[in-house]
Amino acid sequence: MNQEYITPNAWSIIEEGFDPELVQSSESLFSLGNGAMGQRANFEEHYSGETFQGSYIAGVYYPDKTRVGWWKNGYPEYFAKVLNAPNWIGINISINNIPLDLNTCKQVKDFRRELNMKEGWYMRSFRATLSNDMEIKISTTRFLSLALDEIGSIEYQMEVLNGNAEVILQPYLDSGIKNQDSNWDDRFWNTTNITSNGDRAFIEAHTMKTNFATCTFMQSNANVAGKSVEILKEEQSETKISFYYKTELEKGEKITLTKLGGYTTSRYHNAKALIQAGNDVLDKASALGFQGLLEQQKKAWSEIWEMSDITIEGDVRAQQGIRFNIFQLNQTYLGKDSRLNIGPKGFTGEKYGGSTYWDTEAYCLPFYMATKNQNVAWSLLEYRYNHLEKAIENAAMLGFKNEAALYPMVTMNGEECHNEWEITFEEIHRNGAIAFAIYNYYRFTGDYSYIPEMGLEVLIGIARFWHQRANWSSKKGKYVILGVTGPNEYENNVNNNWYTNYLAKWCIEYALEQIEKVKEGYPTDYDRIVAHTKITDDELEQWDEVAGKMFFPKSKKHNIYLQQDGFLDKELITAEHLDKSQRPINQKWSWDRILRSPYIKQADVLQGFYFFEDHFSKEELERHFDFYEPFTVHESSLSPCVHSIQAAKLGRMEQAYRLYLRTSRLDLDDYNREVEEGLHITSMAGTWMSIVEGFGGMRVLEDKLHFYPQIPEQWDSYSFKVNFRNRIIKVIIEKESAKFHLIGNEEMTIRVNGKRLVLVPGETVSA
Amino acid sequence: MNQEYITPNAWSIIEEGFDPELVQSSESLFSLGNGAMGQRANFEEHYSGETFQGSYIAGVYYPDKTRVGWWKNGYPEYFAKVLNAPNWIGINISINNIPLDLNTCKQVKDFRRELNMKEGWYMRSFRATLSNDMEIKISTTRFLSLALDEIGSIEYQMEVLNGNAEVILQPYLDSGIKNQDSNWDDRFWNTTNITSNGDRAFIEAHTMKTNFATCTFMQSNANVAGKSVEILKEEQSETKISFYYKTELEKGEKITLTKLGGYTTSRYHNAKALIQAGNDVLDKASALGFQGLLEQQKKAWSEIWEMSDITIEGDVRAQQGIRFNIFQLNQTYLGKDSRLNIGPKGFTGEKYGGSTYWDTEAYCLPFYMATKNQNVAWSLLEYRYNHLEKAIENAAMLGFKNEAALYPMVTMNGEECHNEWEITFEEIHRNGAIAFAIYNYYRFTGDYSYIPEMGLEVLIGIARFWHQRANWSSKKGKYVILGVTGPNEYENNVNNNWYTNYLAKWCIEYALEQIEKVKEGYPTDYDRIVAHTKITDDELEQWDEVAGKMFFPKSKKHNIYLQQDGFLDKELITAEHLDKSQRPINQKWSWDRILRSPYIKQADVLQGFYFFEDHFSKEELERHFDFYEPFTVHESSLSPCVHSIQAAKLGRMEQAYRLYLRTSRLDLDDYNREVEEGLHITSMAGTWMSIVEGFGGMRVLEDKLHFYPQIPEQWDSYSFKVNFRNRIIKVIIEKESAKFHLIGNEEMTIRVNGKRLVLVPGETVSA
Repeated sequence: MNQEYITPNAWSIIEEGFDPELVQSSESLFSLGNGAMGQRANFEEHYSGETFQGSYIAGVYYPDKTRVGWWKNGYPEYFAKVLNAPNWIGINISINNIPLDLNTCKQVKDFRRELNMKEGWYMRSFRATLSNDMEIKISTTRFLSLALDEIGSIEYQMEVLNGNAEVILQPYLDSGIKNQDSNWDDRFWNTTNITSNGDRAFIEAHTMKTNFATCTFMQSNANVAGKSVEILKEEQSETKISFYYKTELEKGEKITLTKLGGYTTSRYHNAKALIQAGNDVLDKASALGFQGLLEQQKKAWSEIWEMSDITIEGDVRAQQGIRFNIFQLNQTYLGKDSRLNIGPKGFTGEKYGGSTYWDTEAYCLPFYMATKNQNVAWSLLEYRYNHLEKAIENAAMLGFKNEAALYPMVTMNGEECHNEWEITFEEIHRNGAIAFAIYNYYRFTGDYSYIPEMGLEVLIGIARFWHQRANWSSKKGKYVILGVTGPNEYENNVNNNWYTNYLAKWCIEYALEQIEKVKEGYPTDYDRIVAHTKITDDELEQWDEVAGKMFFPKSKKHNIYLQQDGFLDKELITAEHLDKSQRPINQKWSWDRILRSPYIKQADVLQGFYFFEDHFSKEELERHFDFYEPFTVHESSLSPCVHSIQAAKLGRMEQAYRLYLRTSRLDLDDYNREVEEGLHITSMAGTWMSIVEGFGGMRVLEDKLHFYPQIPEQWDSYSFKVNFRNRIIKVIIEKESAKFHLIGNEEMTIRVNGKRLVLVPGETVSA
Repeated sequence: MNQEYITPNAWSIIEEGFDPELVQSSESLFSLGNGAMGQRANFEEHYSGETFQGSYIAGVYYPDKTRVGWWKNGYPEYFAKVLNAPNWIGINISINNIPLDLNTCKQVKDFRRELNMKEGWYMRSFRATLSNDMEIKISTTRFLSLALDEIGSIEYQMEVLNGNAEVILQPYLDSGIKNQDSNWDDRFWNTTNITSNGDRAFIEAHTMKTNFATCTFMQSNANVAGKSVEILKEEQSETKISFYYKTELEKGEKITLTKLGGYTTSRYHNAKALIQAGNDVLDKASALGFQGLLEQQKKAWSEIWEMSDITIEGDVRAQQGIRFNIFQLNQTYLGKDSRLNIGPKGFTGEKYGGSTYWDTEAYCLPFYMATKNQNVAWSLLEYRYNHLEKAIENAAMLGFKNEAALYPMVTMNGEECHNEWEITFEEIHRNGAIAFAIYNYYRFTGDYSYIPEMGLEVLIGIARFWHQRANWSSKKGKYVILGVTGPNEYENNVNNNWYTNYLAKWCIEYALEQIEKVKEGYPTDYDRIVAHTKITDDELEQWDEVAGKMFFPKSKKHNIYLQQDGFLDKELITAEHLDKSQRPINQKWSWDRILRSPYIKQADVLQGFYFFEDHFSKEELERHFDFYEPFTVHESSLSPCVHSIQAAKLGRMEQAYRLYLRTSRLDLDDYNREVEEGLHITSMAGTWMSIVEGFGGMRVLEDKLHFYPQIPEQWDSYSFKVNFRNRIIKVIIEKESAKFHLIGNEEMTIRVNGKRLVLVPGETVSA
């Protein structure tokens, strides 16, 4: 780990003491989100120190041109940037004409932040001595409402501690914001209208190019000892509007400013009626008031935790880690809008661009399947079905024929929006994860309907892609897949990446099976699909030929599958020999050096063993784990979770526990030295898996839920719930026992350590 | 070929008839340059049709940021753009208030362009009928002076053919120009001062970031029938200044506007005295006048042709092609300033950025060595010696130690300025070409002094790089070089590119030899170099170990060296099976498809056979040529020349001739469908080689010049001159004979077809 300043606490993220060096890290860690919008934990008042300002609206992006020197044919036109949205949280403060700025105060004491995950709010308090020696105390609480997801609320309190003072408070809206990752100091917003009405103000702005129309709004009121302070005046500039409150505070007197704010956008409203929509939501919110909204918030989070909480007794840092992961996943995506997805940084930063990666299918789906209503997982699958046409267009642009589909590596709307060839064109394993998710959904939910309704067409497009992407090697007498990048992005343009080849073969075979199954069981769907896709027996035979003769690189010497053809030509020095000063290598080494090194960013062969665990023996897993893990630097956030699960399966609990801490506290302890850029949201679902599938050993086999429970020696007990085929089972694992509690109407059979266990609704059974 | 509109002519490039579709192609083909500046053949008068405006000043560039989404550690900060410089050629015209614009004329007749290569001028003439039915005749001639290389001159004549007219002529300067390849419509110039003085005007502008200060200037005068027309007024805007001439022309009367223009820059003058410097050069030029300057120009070009001309009798298209190549090379680089180099597009376009590539050492050096004073070649070598420190810094940035040197792939000033990892970090063979040039310079000039003075340090830095870049493969029991891009850029990040491995081994061995030679022959230099580089016997032994155990991929089946480890896994379908609609593949196919195809952009294994011809038998060459050429699509301009030379060596004269036409008329006939972007300057030196080394069969072996003369059946005879070790030999090859004529003081022995031939100064000897 690289930092350790967060106070361990079971339900809250807490920082105590002010350290300007940690401001940007905390801005990430204390981020808020409600699925529809989110924001970094920036200060309300002006801060002149190093800060990374960020507010984000789900689904609102900017298509940045990214032309580089030598353009590659087939690149998409743009890179979709996660867009910093207008700021509604700002409140500028001055005391006797000295602005409050934590960067220039004489002294800051009792600084404290708390992100209360149980109830979904964030609070910050401190005492500060200004350059004019005035000492004040600030306490501010804010949250983004889950119930009214276009609104957030702030209660900002200030007390003067050492004398009387004239204080000015200026709550404002600001659309003159930029992206930190803007290459050219470009602005991405056009402000078209600024207006106010009493204690409410509105800025209408639309994004350049994509033309998302938004209205950012606020409503504020201030009072001192229950007496209202009036707005004295209003100030406007081209991109900003503020209200001006001025009052005299006596020593010990407190002023409270309450601010409601948020966005209405053309994604959900008529672009011409956004102010009206803003007024409507402000009416609802102000009727409830800050306290009423907060009560609603606690209730909404309580419902989420009811189903998704994981408890860990005896290890508060492990407990804090898993709750932080579950909390952030729920802040990012709630499954309400099937046009949205789970961005790798959620609402906590700009990096990577786009919102949808293979992360969704490979890592996030299991979490949402098990902790939410089945519709949420369906929404995630439907998202890809809705993008099938664009995936076909994308493949055609790269020269594929016959409606082969290649899903984009990064997307906002189904179009590819990333343009490094080794990723965009070659990291094609993403197609496999999308097919695997269809299989996984059926396996876990038991709901086959997605396949005849939508999934089979996706599977056919994907199988066509793999069939065409492989070529016959007369040297090897097999089909090979040349020029790919596997999940281990520390190798590019390699031949016969084992994971990719294995997925390709599986995708084709799974598509062939499902075609048969739909043909037999869903003849109407089958006829529609055949008419639409024009598959023929001849085509299917060709697929079968490629799948059957797929090449897999192997090492006889090591008795393992090789990550790719050339792996054994590398200098095979394990990662433990790397000097600490060289880590993380992606920040220290040039790309060519990384590429020719043996170091692995994330599970690659082992990722395949994770997906297809039942295809390999435990001995095979052990051999591959022992070969590859020592070269793995886990510099992908997606790496430690899968390794933790496999270490647990191999009974290596100490290693599984270490990897669990690395995945669950990746951001809290900043293992990858980059938390200031934002959080790693998608890998947080991997953390959930590392408990449920790793220690809990949950598997679905032959339609049954299986458990192989273990417990790290650091823990007294832990518990989780899963929604399996619409039945909710709570699992409590203690040192010497495992208990299962079924919520539902009918009894159900599970298997624990290979033994049958009948669960009766309402009763807790030990195994 | 893809176009055929240039009139065949031995000494001129001629276009007849106006076709708007060809404007951009002709703007490239009729480009002018004088080593210090250059310009595309844009019209003087306004043109509203499709045009690619370009004026360029040698060594003046812009460091464009090129940050892409996922940044690689070790990338340089910028991409050096070839910068479109202020326009000084512009002359706006109106006739009875209708502007002259060839795009909107009712009719254009007798349109003709001529680039006279013998004398170094460009002329354009036409008759046009404007929308007001006025018919005019224009004839304009311009050139960039070789003698006064800061100045160019235009004589613009207009006659009204069908009645009287009020005509307005506005010669102007304009610094409000952009780059066509600007990503963001950025401007790269800051205009700081616009001023005039009588018939002279000046714009001072400096480049953003690099802060090159420039003064663009003009002087104009107009007359009708010998009578001067006065400047009526002057107009200015923020980035433009123009003079305003107005007069009445009677039918048949002619107005002549003479314009001098050009640049003075902070590269050669005090930045604060650029206007004064401009005045000085205008004084010199106006004293000579247009005709005086033109006479000087003819003389200067005559001197260049005296040494560098190649004549071909009986094949005017072949003759035109070679002269076009020689002319453009001399327009681009004359060796006067060792800070300059030979940009791949010279002064004819923006593409690629930077000015120096491995093209200089691998392709251009032989031309300049043989057709210029030895100092010019020395300048080119010195350029790299001056950049050695930066090459060492560059390698250190990529993790190399002990003062290993990696020269940049693209540079303006020694710093790397390209940032695609597969090129910047992996196309490392460039280091080999730089070492080879040192060997080649000594071989050809016999001047060893460069090696002890400068070259050995370069060789040591390069050998250190190769030594560290290779790694031991325990699988192969050899040293391997992983993750490279060879000259064939249609494969990236491959292992054991044969050409790269071969060069690496050779570089180390050559450096070891030269260390011994300098130690014995130049002890003072040796001591200085050892003190500076700190080479030790132990280090040299390590180099030797790596060179001695270098791995070279081979195919037993085909009995050839393999381009790289994985070549035989590809689908080996030869290029003749590619549909025409798919060519050039770099405009039709996505990058991944190109990479996994067997198609070769340019000679790779064969490039190695070209450099090290004497290491391989003719049978080996034939086998490799027969294997690789059928996969070669020659989409690199550098490809056909080497293949032409090798085809000639193999006695395949028809193929050699076809490839000769492809290299010599690459741009004239637009083989690669991209001539509108500019000319392929560096490959033009390859065209020269394809005659001198290809058909002429010139080689240097054992200190002697050897010739193996052949003649394509399409030609009656051809001739060329070479400056070999300060003796000039003219070679005339006819159907049945070859004649050699020595210019110099002492007699000299050469070998023709293996036989000794003694040349006596002033006499012509047949072989």
